[in-house]
Amino acid sequence: MTSERADVQERLEELYRELEPLQMEALWRVQGVDPAVRSEAGAPYQPYVWRWKELRALMERAGDLVRTGPEAERRVIILTNPGVAPSRSATHTLLANLQMVIPGDVAPTHRHTATAIRFVIEGSGASTIVDGEPVVMHPGDLVLTPAWSWHGHVNESDGPMFWMDGLDSPLIRSLRAGIQERYGEELQLPTKDAGDSMNRYGANLRPVWSAASSPASPLLQYPWPQTEEALHRLAKVDASPYDDVAMEYSNPLTGGHVLPTMACWIQMIRPGVHTQAHRHMNSVAYHVFRGRGATIIDGVRYDWAQGDFLALPPRCWHEHLNESAGEEAILFSITDTPVFESLNLQREEVYAERDGRQVVREAAAAG
Amino acid sequence: MTSERADVQERLEELYRELEPLQMEALWRVQGVDPAVRSEAGAPYQPYVWRWKELRALMERAGDLVRTGPEAERRVIILTNPGVAPSRSATHTLLANLQMVIPGDVAPTHRHTATAIRFVIEGSGASTIVDGEPVVMHPGDLVLTPAWSWHGHVNESDGPMFWMDGLDSPLIRSLRAGIQERYGEELQLPTKDAGDSMNRYGANLRPVWSAASSPASPLLQYPWPQTEEALHRLAKVDASPYDDVAMEYSNPLTGGHVLPTMACWIQMIRPGVHTQAHRHMNSVAYHVFRGRGATIIDGVRYDWAQGDFLALPPRCWHEHLNESAGEEAILFSITDTPVFESLNLQREEVYAERDGRQVVREAAAAG
Amino acid sequence: MTSERADVQERLEELYRELEPLQMEALWRVQGVDPAVRSEAGAPYQPYVWRWKELRALMERAGDLVRTGPEAERRVIILTNPGVAPSRSATHTLLANLQMVIPGDVAPTHRHTATAIRFVIEGSGASTIVDGEPVVMHPGDLVLTPAWSWHGHVNESDGPMFWMDGLDSPLIRSLRAGIQERYGEELQLPTKDAGDSMNRYGANLRPVWSAASSPASPLLQYPWPQTEEALHRLAKVDASPYDDVAMEYSNPLTGGHVLPTMACWIQMIRPGVHTQAHRHMNSVAYHVFRGRGATIIDGVRYDWAQGDFLALPPRCWHEHLNESAGEEAILFSITDTPVFESLNLQREEVYAERDGRQVVREAAAAG
Amino acid sequence: MTSERADVQERLEELYRELEPLQMEALWRVQGVDPAVRSEAGAPYQPYVWRWKELRALMERAGDLVRTGPEAERRVIILTNPGVAPSRSATHTLLANLQMVIPGDVAPTHRHTATAIRFVIEGSGASTIVDGEPVVMHPGDLVLTPAWSWHGHVNESDGPMFWMDGLDSPLIRSLRAGIQERYGEELQLPTKDAGDSMNRYGANLRPVWSAASSPASPLLQYPWPQTEEALHRLAKVDASPYDDVAMEYSNPLTGGHVLPTMACWIQMIRPGVHTQAHRHMNSVAYHVFRGRGATIIDGVRYDWAQGDFLALPPRCWHEHLNESAGEEAILFSITDTPVFESLNLQREEVYAERDGRQVVREAAAAG
Repeated sequence: MTSERADVQERLEELYRELEPLQMEALWRVQGVDPAVRSEAGAPYQPYVWRWKELRALMERAGDLVRTGPEAERRVIILTNPGVAPSRSATHTLLANLQMVIPGDVAPTHRHTATAIRFVIEGSGASTIVDGEPVVMHPGDLVLTPAWSWHGHVNESDGPMFWMDGLDSPLIRSLRAGIQERYGEELQLPTKDAGDSMNRYGANLRPVWSAASSPASPLLQYPWPQTEEALHRLAKVDASPYDDVAMEYSNPLTGGHVLPTMACWIQMIRPGVHTQAHRHMNSVAYHVFRGRGATIIDGVRYDWAQGDFLALPPRCWHEHLNESAGEEAILFSITDTPVFESLNLQREEVYAERDGRQVVREAAAAG
Repeated sequence: MTSERADVQERLEELYRELEPLQMEALWRVQGVDPAVRSEAGAPYQPYVWRWKELRALMERAGDLVRTGPEAERRVIILTNPGVAPSRSATHTLLANLQMVIPGDVAPTHRHTATAIRFVIEGSGASTIVDGEPVVMHPGDLVLTPAWSWHGHVNESDGPMFWMDGLDSPLIRSLRAGIQERYGEELQLPTKDAGDSMNRYGANLRPVWSAASSPASPLLQYPWPQTEEALHRLAKVDASPYDDVAMEYSNPLTGGHVLPTMACWIQMIRPGVHTQAHRHMNSVAYHVFRGRGATIIDGVRYDWAQGDFLALPPRCWHEHLNESAGEEAILFSITDTPVFESLNLQREEVYAERDGRQVVREAAAAG
Repeated sequence: MTSERADVQERLEELYRELEPLQMEALWRVQGVDPAVRSEAGAPYQPYVWRWKELRALMERAGDLVRTGPEAERRVIILTNPGVAPSRSATHTLLANLQMVIPGDVAPTHRHTATAIRFVIEGSGASTIVDGEPVVMHPGDLVLTPAWSWHGHVNESDGPMFWMDGLDSPLIRSLRAGIQERYGEELQLPTKDAGDSMNRYGANLRPVWSAASSPASPLLQYPWPQTEEALHRLAKVDASPYDDVAMEYSNPLTGGHVLPTMACWIQMIRPGVHTQAHRHMNSVAYHVFRGRGATIIDGVRYDWAQGDFLALPPRCWHEHLNESAGEEAILFSITDTPVFESLNLQREEVYAERDGRQVVREAAAAG
Repeated sequence: MTSERADVQERLEELYRELEPLQMEALWRVQGVDPAVRSEAGAPYQPYVWRWKELRALMERAGDLVRTGPEAERRVIILTNPGVAPSRSATHTLLANLQMVIPGDVAPTHRHTATAIRFVIEGSGASTIVDGEPVVMHPGDLVLTPAWSWHGHVNESDGPMFWMDGLDSPLIRSLRAGIQERYGEELQLPTKDAGDSMNRYGANLRPVWSAASSPASPLLQYPWPQTEEALHRLAKVDASPYDDVAMEYSNPLTGGHVLPTMACWIQMIRPGVHTQAHRHMNSVAYHVFRGRGATIIDGVRYDWAQGDFLALPPRCWHEHLNESAGEEAILFSITDTPVFESLNLQREEVYAERDGRQVVREAAAAG
């Protein structure tokens, strides 16, 4: 090993050491390893918060050290909730990872029985090609890669991009349903125009010849400008006592969840709002897209700010608050709701005491 | 006739005389064969075209002569297809009427088990109030008044408005399911902001707390700018061989038809397009929103131009054409498709011969 | 009338004259109000009872006089409710006819978009061949011939058989959806063993490879012994306040109605039972399979006894009673419930006053 | 500890030692321990066969040694497939255990979010009380205890009973969805007559007032006489190339699976039948109710005889054979099919080569 190589390796090892106490893990290091799930029947595990400040800084350092290709297929940091170890994931069913793509990166096309989404955090212009449709990504966009859809990406822009990767891999692993396949060539070339699915399903109209061939949404992209406008329009007329101005991205062909194992939400906690507590069987992985606030979970207060991630385990009482004078807090989240609904296992409960507000026992230690 | 035969005949006649006052009838006498088997497979009645030029001129004259109120609750001209008389309607299941509302008109609030839609043809600014939500109308807008929803309207603008009223009243009457009710006061006052349902369901997102309480769309308005954009976006990527660039308005909570007894379509026949023929069990009432063209129905050519209405009976072979060099033809239509689908009676057939083009026997006489 | 008013009236009359040849009609002239609003909320027509004594006697006489074949394809007496004339049918959607088949009769195989059922009243041993499956019939058996299934019958027994033919032909006609087809040969020969569908779906088990290819039940026969046992078993544990011991025949592949446009019920009004009144949008054609009793409909009492038929129109208050000391009354019925449910038009209402019992104004005149 | 007690303990320990190499485990010993699931994405684990001869003998010895109550709530032997360790279960989603109940045993009423079924192997007369309905059990009966239904049992007969307990607990644990609750008293007293659900749903008829309040079957018992008759009736008309005469128990209110997370099958491999191979995503736990035969799984032959249990992992090629001259082989099985269907993860594949027959590489070592 050359001394230069050794140096890089050493700096990588240092990176890994720093990731660990923050409950973060480098995907390229552990890929190929089968994380196991320790089941704790009836006992909810702990929530966890990951800080953007640390996450982004470490990711940037990774960007300097790791080349995609032979070294690492993806530059991804896994958020590993200690409560679900040895599974390396945010909740027992959901992965919430951070991916960085730098100019020139190409991720070869592949597909798998796991379902994935991306939610763009920073940067613009990289494309994901999903089943032949190129999807150009901008901050706040949600992009779907349904189970078994071919997908790969390329960054032809001139800057790095950061996005959240949400997957149901822990669920798929526990169901022993994981299958994956590589596309013959490096990257599948586009077979459709950019915007093809938006052109078909972008409004409350649908081609008369369309028919649902799968329960997954045929609409692959939910661009931020529409999403933001929808949030603000809804805010004019209604809100949920538990989630404030909360919307679920929906499948235009069914009106239901966008994916059969994963639902996606966007929600705005308006300045001054403090919601009432409730709890449910599904778990949630949140990403703070804008603003700052806090979630009180089983009596413990977890503060969060732009860029942070929060894992909410099943059956925890939780309420959200935004104490700012004028700044909206916007949370994007993925959840396994469809699984519990499909299997008739969903349960929801409203916190009836004290007007829906828990007693806060403590603030969470720094995540 | 032998005397034995004559005797039998006489005894039969006596039998028939005895059956009658008992409200019984010998099947073999009135039909000879099973009544179900007597039905005819072809088109049960003729198509019909109504001309905008005549319709609008007559309507204007009516506007001078008829005041709404004691004289006439609504200033409406019914399009009556002779093929379905004595029913006064465009098809055997659908009403397609023209309504004119002049400044100051007020239609008192009421509701009925019949389902209705409006499609705005000319004029702007009158409002329909549907279940408390004021919907301000502009040309090309589709407005839903689902069965049993309260609705009334008022024209506070400074000009007349013309819109198409589409209803399933003939169906409801044949099902003996008509029930109506008046709202206590003249006009129900708004209980919601204008745009309430658009604010909730205007994009491919939905409030997390919403749930379908009815199979009818909760979205009451489909504004023309979005509709037009959707048509042009779809035109970029796909089209139907039978209907060219055709979209169905959809229920955001189900992805299905907007109403359980009536579907609404918007379709663009592009310049130079001549579609292939097909036929189906459902009937259709078309309104030409823009442009001009023709539809060939069971070998007869029916020309149409902006403002015209066309009734398409069940099981007619039909193909559309737009012979203009550069002008789009845009057809809005209502159809009873959901009825035939729900009852498992829908049938669709493609015209296989001559590349899907019928021989034109004649042009229709002026409608 | 002032001269100005007279002038307006004259100009209006001229307008009306011009509208007519254009197949247009002024709504305010023919109805004054919205046609949907004109509908009446109460029962749209009268109930009717047909007496078995008369029906059977007349049918026997017909048996002597009418040969099937060139003279009459079927020996069928239609029950024609005066309330739905000119439709010759029991209700506006349902035919309830009496068919007699004598030894040697053959009804050639055919199919149609109308749905049919038979319920066997008297005699044993004739067979209906439905889509190639021979179904041997005995009293109390329900036999389905779903829309578009091939069916014909033959009486190879040594006595006459009487059965009720239930069809949705009036509905199909009002939907202009009637299509029929003859099988090439006289009678389709069996292609399956007798009991094929019973062998597949006779219990609460289903072949693992079966899948619903249609919303109609794949089970073609519901034999009386099982039906009777089911009624008596249910009687041990529960009953409806409105219908006493009432069961719906169900589609084993969906648990729902046996046919998409028609439901079939069997119900036992036990000795001494007097149900509470309710009403609904669907109409019903009843056949009294056993016993005697009465139904009070909108304040009029209609007595019935074994063999009689009763037509119940939509939206009539009705309650049943069996005043016998020990004899069960058993009613078989067909109803259009699935239509109203599918189109979201069903309504049910409970008669709240006087413990659910109507005041009887009169007994019906002999039917 | 008295010497008698010590002696019992020693014999218990010996029992446990003998269970272990047979991949069996005493439930009362490990209850309260949370088994974990080691996920092996993409890699199917091994099948496993448990022998009735050993199982029953050990169970009998357990019957002498273990009293239910303070010592052990249930006398259950867990079948633990080494391929899914540390989960102690037959497949990664399914438990297939053997329970023995001796006269006087009472299992206190409780409920849980896990779904359970019993299939009776030997003995008669013990009762399970499910949501207040006493179900008396006989060999071959399937009894359902849907998720969250109260259930307990009592053996008031004069002999021991053996049944298979099938549960989805491993699935529920991996979903962190396990919740359980004790009924206030020892055993819930019956609130309904024996046979209540059979009286309502025992035939292809249903009470007119019934409505599905849950996706689980309201019919709690599927008695063997009907099941056996259904198998023999189906054998007359049809069979599957992959499963021979195979039927799924069905929910009378939906026609679908009896339980939202578990399906139950009964299948007869007729003498001389050798099926073709196929594979699927779902796993299966089989119990041999009658006869003997073999299943070839991924090229290895697993023989089985009456009373044996066989675990079939996901995505294994498998074919069944019955080489006997005249004896039927009857397999009861539970499977997680509904989970994979609900989540759109099911896959089925037919073995196309060699007429659907695998090359047998070896016979499995004694299980």
